Amino acid sequence: MTEPLTTGATIGILGGGQLGRMLSVAASRLGFKTCVFEPDGDCPASHVSNYHVKADYDDPDALRSFAQAVDVVTYEFENIPTSALDIIETLRPIRPGREALRISQDRLTEKEFLTKLGLKTAPFAAVDNGDDLATALDQIGTPAILKTRRFGYDGKGQARIMTSGDAEQALAEMAGTPALLEGFVAFSHEVSVIAARAPDGSISCFDPGENVHQGGILRTTTVPARLNPTQRSDAVLLAANILNALDYVGVLGVELFVTPGELIVNEIAPRVHNSGHWTQNGCAVDQFEQHIRAVASWPLGDGRRHSDVVMENLIGSDVDRVRQIASEPHAALHLYGKAACKPGRKMGHVNRLKPGAS
Amino acid sequence: MTEPLTTGATIGILGGGQLGRMLSVAASRLGFKTCVFEPDGDCPASHVSNYHVKADYDDPDALRSFAQAVDVVTYEFENIPTSALDIIETLRPIRPGREALRISQDRLTEKEFLTKLGLKTAPFAAVDNGDDLATALDQIGTPAILKTRRFGYDGKGQARIMTSGDAEQALAEMAGTPALLEGFVAFSHEVSVIAARAPDGSISCFDPGENVHQGGILRTTTVPARLNPTQRSDAVLLAANILNALDYVGVLGVELFVTPGELIVNEIAPRVHNSGHWTQNGCAVDQFEQHIRAVASWPLGDGRRHSDVVMENLIGSDVDRVRQIASEPHAALHLYGKAACKPGRKMGHVNRLKPGAS
Repeated sequence: MTEPLTTGATIGILGGGQLGRMLSVAASRLGFKTCVFEPDGDCPASHVSNYHVKADYDDPDALRSFAQAVDVVTYEFENIPTSALDIIETLRPIRPGREALRISQDRLTEKEFLTKLGLKTAPFAAVDNGDDLATALDQIGTPAILKTRRFGYDGKGQARIMTSGDAEQALAEMAGTPALLEGFVAFSHEVSVIAARAPDGSISCFDPGENVHQGGILRTTTVPARLNPTQRSDAVLLAANILNALDYVGVLGVELFVTPGELIVNEIAPRVHNSGHWTQNGCAVDQFEQHIRAVASWPLGDGRRHSDVVMENLIGSDVDRVRQIASEPHAALHLYGKAACKPGRKMGHVNRLKPGAS
Repeated sequence: MTEPLTTGATIGILGGGQLGRMLSVAASRLGFKTCVFEPDGDCPASHVSNYHVKADYDDPDALRSFAQAVDVVTYEFENIPTSALDIIETLRPIRPGREALRISQDRLTEKEFLTKLGLKTAPFAAVDNGDDLATALDQIGTPAILKTRRFGYDGKGQARIMTSGDAEQALAEMAGTPALLEGFVAFSHEVSVIAARAPDGSISCFDPGENVHQGGILRTTTVPARLNPTQRSDAVLLAANILNALDYVGVLGVELFVTPGELIVNEIAPRVHNSGHWTQNGCAVDQFEQHIRAVASWPLGDGRRHSDVVMENLIGSDVDRVRQIASEPHAALHLYGKAACKPGRKMGHVNRLKPGAS
């Protein structure tokens, strides 16, 4: 499929969380219908989509009827079971493609891919058992961080090793699943590049944002990020390098550690990214629409920043401040319609525009 | 109901066209669910709402179950049958209230209301028959325009009378329905004020936009409008005057003719308004969200303009240019997902941001 989707076509979205919700709204702006595949009933994306297939990822009939009801399939998270993708792939194009998913689903594969591209990553080594860990710690040193190779997000599936005495406990936390030891990087700050690539190979990058995490969860993204002109162009070129290597279609998030000498790739995400939410109020075309445009073979839109923005995630009980934030000048609220509020759960975000600057 | 609606509450919207669609998206941003009442099946608003009651306005059971499923009722058009409102009103608050609807549903009532407030309108006279029309023409002169008192929109239900020889034909076009003769106003341009009022009486106005019509249909709105500082503050004060007189809750559109000496009220619309679509890309909080905030008893948001914008409606075959517009710099597209394209039908709009100006 390289012909542009016509208005009225249906875009299938795997995953019904907040990213699926905002993708669905963006699709509607371009006149597309959406169909969300999500096991949970009252999921955020279902509130703003045409259709909701409420089924599990191990239900082949549901996957088939979902695929047949749509024109193209995209997703809001990378940990989609391979078996589900195998079924969908026989019926409809999946964008971004399987290769991007295969690589980003496994931290080891991802790091090897990035290294092969000539990009810098934190030092890393595969850890399947205690012997591997001992060897890896010898090689990489402490402090280091042990991470499950698969299914990690928002700091989950990670254990710090400050001294070699922490090794046993950290390994126990991996519960026998394949893991990866990563060395610490002495970085001054983290930035991310949200980049899009269309089927014709054209690429558009949003301005890099600067991220602050708390407890493993993104807290704020500020644009513009603190980068000198060389770093800025390096960041964008590096993202384009990744997109081209994957023959990628859609939006990709690239997290980078900034060190005095170089940019180090922390991780990539083959989807719209929390650190790109600022684009909703800082650009004519935001990351969600840019993703839909690419997936639909439309021309990429104008993602230039017209306003400086600070995005703040509203996590758990942060939503108690909503009434107050709603009254703030320059503030644009985005709530996800989640029924239950839990600690660590992303409930919404606020984009604060900086007056008079851009 | 003056307590703010809590996230997860449901907002009922009468009418499933593009205004209902954009209201529904705005409601989702604040975490609300939406239920659309609309006889048409595949209507634009149903694509992005939680629930769609597909029923006619003369179906009392459907109206009752709609009202019972929601926490508050608003609407996207003013010509809602009174019998439907009577049913809903017994069950849920209707915002904006009945008085605003009563006045704006009838051009004569509206003009009398505005005049009583001390605002200027075009000269007018009620016309129920040929004798009335002759008297009105004597009094007002030509050129003039004969309009049905009710159910007119986008130039429909109007006939121009350039000389008294046109009178008979114009009256025939009214087909026996009560009408109004309006004198022409020698205005230089038309502007509109999109103003919002919350239940606590607080008011927020967007910057006035300058409108250009073609064939009775809005073609473009440009902000800022050509107004001197006095005219600008007069326009805003006048809108606030109307809102307060109606004890209004929600967004109201006020169309004004600009003449060298004064501002003349053309008409008011008790709802979000086509000439306010620019706010989607020019402000942190747009007219749709502002309306939902008022209806939900939330604080009004920051509607200050951060960018200059020209909004262009995409009417009928204008949508053939969509691919090209999608590639333009500074352009934000908004399509309505209408299945069929007809001449004169509003299919979408594009907001073009002016770079570097605000």
